[in-house]
Amino acid sequence: MSLLIRNALHQGRERDIYVEDGGIREIGSVSVETDEVINAENMAILPGFVNTHTHAAMTLFRGWGDDMDLQDWLTKRIWPMEAHIDENLVYWGTKLACLEMIRTGTTTFMDMYFHPESSAKAVDEMGIRGFISSIFLDKFTGTGLEESIKTAKKDIRALERIGPTIYPALGPHAVYSCSREILEWVAVYSCEKEIPVHFHLLETEGEKINFQRENGIEITEFLEEINFLQPRLVAAHCVWADQRDIERLAKFNVNVSYNPVSNMKLAVGKTMNVPRMEKEGINIGLGTDGAASNNTLSMLDTIKFAGLSAKNYFKNPTLCNADSLLNYATSNGAAALSLDSGVIEEGKLADILLVDLKHESMVPRRHSLHSKMAYSASPEAIRYVICNGKTVMRGRDVKDSREIIKGFENAVNNWFEKYGND
Amino acid sequence: MSLLIRNALHQGRERDIYVEDGGIREIGSVSVETDEVINAENMAILPGFVNTHTHAAMTLFRGWGDDMDLQDWLTKRIWPMEAHIDENLVYWGTKLACLEMIRTGTTTFMDMYFHPESSAKAVDEMGIRGFISSIFLDKFTGTGLEESIKTAKKDIRALERIGPTIYPALGPHAVYSCSREILEWVAVYSCEKEIPVHFHLLETEGEKINFQRENGIEITEFLEEINFLQPRLVAAHCVWADQRDIERLAKFNVNVSYNPVSNMKLAVGKTMNVPRMEKEGINIGLGTDGAASNNTLSMLDTIKFAGLSAKNYFKNPTLCNADSLLNYATSNGAAALSLDSGVIEEGKLADILLVDLKHESMVPRRHSLHSKMAYSASPEAIRYVICNGKTVMRGRDVKDSREIIKGFENAVNNWFEKYGND
Repeated sequence: MSLLIRNALHQGRERDIYVEDGGIREIGSVSVETDEVINAENMAILPGFVNTHTHAAMTLFRGWGDDMDLQDWLTKRIWPMEAHIDENLVYWGTKLACLEMIRTGTTTFMDMYFHPESSAKAVDEMGIRGFISSIFLDKFTGTGLEESIKTAKKDIRALERIGPTIYPALGPHAVYSCSREILEWVAVYSCEKEIPVHFHLLETEGEKINFQRENGIEITEFLEEINFLQPRLVAAHCVWADQRDIERLAKFNVNVSYNPVSNMKLAVGKTMNVPRMEKEGINIGLGTDGAASNNTLSMLDTIKFAGLSAKNYFKNPTLCNADSLLNYATSNGAAALSLDSGVIEEGKLADILLVDLKHESMVPRRHSLHSKMAYSASPEAIRYVICNGKTVMRGRDVKDSREIIKGFENAVNNWFEKYGND
Repeated sequence: MSLLIRNALHQGRERDIYVEDGGIREIGSVSVETDEVINAENMAILPGFVNTHTHAAMTLFRGWGDDMDLQDWLTKRIWPMEAHIDENLVYWGTKLACLEMIRTGTTTFMDMYFHPESSAKAVDEMGIRGFISSIFLDKFTGTGLEESIKTAKKDIRALERIGPTIYPALGPHAVYSCSREILEWVAVYSCEKEIPVHFHLLETEGEKINFQRENGIEITEFLEEINFLQPRLVAAHCVWADQRDIERLAKFNVNVSYNPVSNMKLAVGKTMNVPRMEKEGINIGLGTDGAASNNTLSMLDTIKFAGLSAKNYFKNPTLCNADSLLNYATSNGAAALSLDSGVIEEGKLADILLVDLKHESMVPRRHSLHSKMAYSASPEAIRYVICNGKTVMRGRDVKDSREIIKGFENAVNNWFEKYGND
C-alpha cells in the first residue's frame, strides 16, 4: 500500500509526502506511482492526535447521568448498567468511539475497559492504533492474584494476535481498586514484556487523603517502594500530585496524561500542575477520558481545555502555548507509548491529518497555524485522516459510518430496554 | 416568505413547524403550501444561540498574538494594528464572523467594535440578528462629550435604516475607558430610545482595585449612583463581581454576559460567580468575546466551558446543568436583549436550528438531548440554521461562503502587508 500526498503545507512550505508500508518515506518534491494520490492543496499536514487516556466504549453512556454527584452517578447510573455489559456492547461502543476519534483527528489512543478483546476487534476494523489494556480491579471484584494474572496473560495473548495496530497494555485501574500484589506483578511483567501500563493516579483529593490515612504513607511513596514507577507507566489525571509526588514521577520518568475536560466536569477542584511538571521534565500527554465524563472524544476540545485550564488556574496567559499544547497531543503522547510517530518526518509512522486551510475556523491563513489548531479549529476542518499509511477518512467520509451508528444504537437500545432504570 | 419544517423532534415528539413572516405560526401536524419545505426527519428543532458579547470583526486577529501577557498583547499587537483599521476590514471581518456564527448555530449576537455601520451592513447581508453597538471610548480617545453624543446619534440613525435584523445598541466600553458624563448620558438615552447598553464590567482584578483606589468608591456603587444600572444593560464578564456587586446588579435587573473562554484564555484567575448570581435571580447569558481572545465564535464551545468552569471552580458537579446552560445560550440571551425568541413556541420569532440526531456526537439518541448539545455536539451536527424565518444555512451550506473567505483573506493580507510587524 503506497500513498502520495501532493502539495501539502508542511512547516510553512508546500511539499509532497510519500508514504509506503505504513511509514513516511520521503518529504519533498516526489514523482512516483502510488496506489492512492491525495491532492492536498490548501491543506496543512500534521501528525494525528494521540489520546493517552480513555474508556472508549463508554460512548454507550453519553448523555446519561450528567451533572450528578460522583457517588450518585456511579452507584445509581454507571455501575448498575456495567453489571450487565457484554462483549457485543463493548464492540459497538468502541466502534462508535473510533468513528468519533477518526472524525476529530485521533489516530492512536490508550484504552481501559471491560472485554478488551472486543474493543481491540473494533479498533482493528476501524484501522487506528489502540493500546488496549487488560484491566485489573481485584479490590473491587475479589479476584485472587493467580486468577488476575491468568486473565491478563490470556488477554495479552489474544490482543497480540488481532492486528498490526493493536498493542496490548496492562491496566491496573488505581491504587484504591488494586492490591499491592497485583501492582507489584504488573510492574515486573510490564518490564519483562515491554508493555505499557495504564493507571489512574491522584484524580481526586479523597484518593490522596484516604490512602494516606489508611496506610500512613503517600501514594507515590508507596508506588516507588514497590517499584511501580517506571518509564512505561502512563499515569492519568495526577491533578492532586503535589511537589513531592511530581519529583517522584520525574525521578522515574513516568508519563502523565492530563485530562482537563473530565477533571473540570467532575469538579475535582484543581488543575494538574502543568508548569511544575514541565519544570521537572515530565513527559505530559493529553487524554479525553471516557464519553461518560467528557462527553466527547475530540482531542481538539481537550487541547483547548488543557491550555485554558492551566492558564487560568495558574493565573498566567503565557503558560501552555499553542506549540506546547500540540506537542502534548502528538509527539509527547507518542513518546509516552514508545511509538515512533507524532511528528511528520521521514522514517516516522504515517499517522497523518490533512487540515483544510480554507475552513472558516482556520483563517486568516497567514496567522499561526498552531494557534488555530489549538484554539479555534472545528473538527470539520480535518479533511483526511491516515493511520499506519492507510486512509481511514477521505473528505470527512469514514467507511460504514451509517452502519456503525445503526449497530451502536441497536445495541444501546436493547441494553437499556432490558436493564435501564431512567 | 413561508417555510414548513416536517417531522422535527420537538420536546420529545415529531412535529411539523410552520413559519411565516419571520415567526413560528403553528406547531403540530400541519398541511399547508409553503415557499420552502425542509424534511427534518431524524433532526431535533432547537432555538438558535444568542451570543451576548463579542467583537465580531476581531476574526481579523485570530491566531495572531496568543499566549501573551495582556499588556504586551494590547500594546505590541492589537493596538498598533487597530490604529489602521478601516470600514473595509470591519466589513470583511464581520462577514467571516457571521459565517462562523451561522455554521455553529448562532442566530443573534451583540457586538461592539469600530465602524459599526460596516459591521451592520455585513450582518444584514448574512441574514442574522446583530445588536450593533455605537462604541464610546472617550477617556482613551479624548473625544469630548458633545462630539461623542453626535457620533452615537449618527450611528444609531444609520443602524436603524440598515435592515430588519439590525438593532442599534449603545456601547460605552468600560468604566476605565468612559467618562462619568458619557455613562450618564448613555443611561438616560438608552431608556428614552429603549436601546440596550453593551458594557465591560469587572473583567479583571486590576479594574476593580484601581477604580476603588482612584475614586474611593466601588465600581457598582458608582454605577448605581449615576443611574447606570438598569434592565437594558448587558454587563459582560463580571468575573470579579463580589457579593455586594452582585446584589446591586440584581437590584436593578442588570443582565450579565458570562464569557468563560475569554476569561480563562486571558487568565483572569477566577470564574464568574454563577451560583451566587443564580441565587440572586440575575439573568445570565453567554458570550464568546472576540476571536482575538477565544479564538472561535462557536457558542457550542462556550456552553461547555461555561458549565465546566463553574463546576470545577465552585467544586460542585451539579452546578450549571445542561438545561441551564442551554437556557443561558438561548432564552436568557434573548431576554437580555428584549428579543421575543430563544424558544421554539408558536408566536415566537423563527430563529431555529435543526440538529442531526444521527451524527456520531449526538448518539445514543435515547440519552439526554440537552446533555449532548451542551457537552458533545460537533458544529457539524447542526444541519440547518433559520433566522427571522429565512434559511441561512441549508445542509451546512451558507451562501457565498467561498467568496466570503476569499474577500476576508484579501483584506487581512493587504492590511498586514502594509502595517503588520510580525
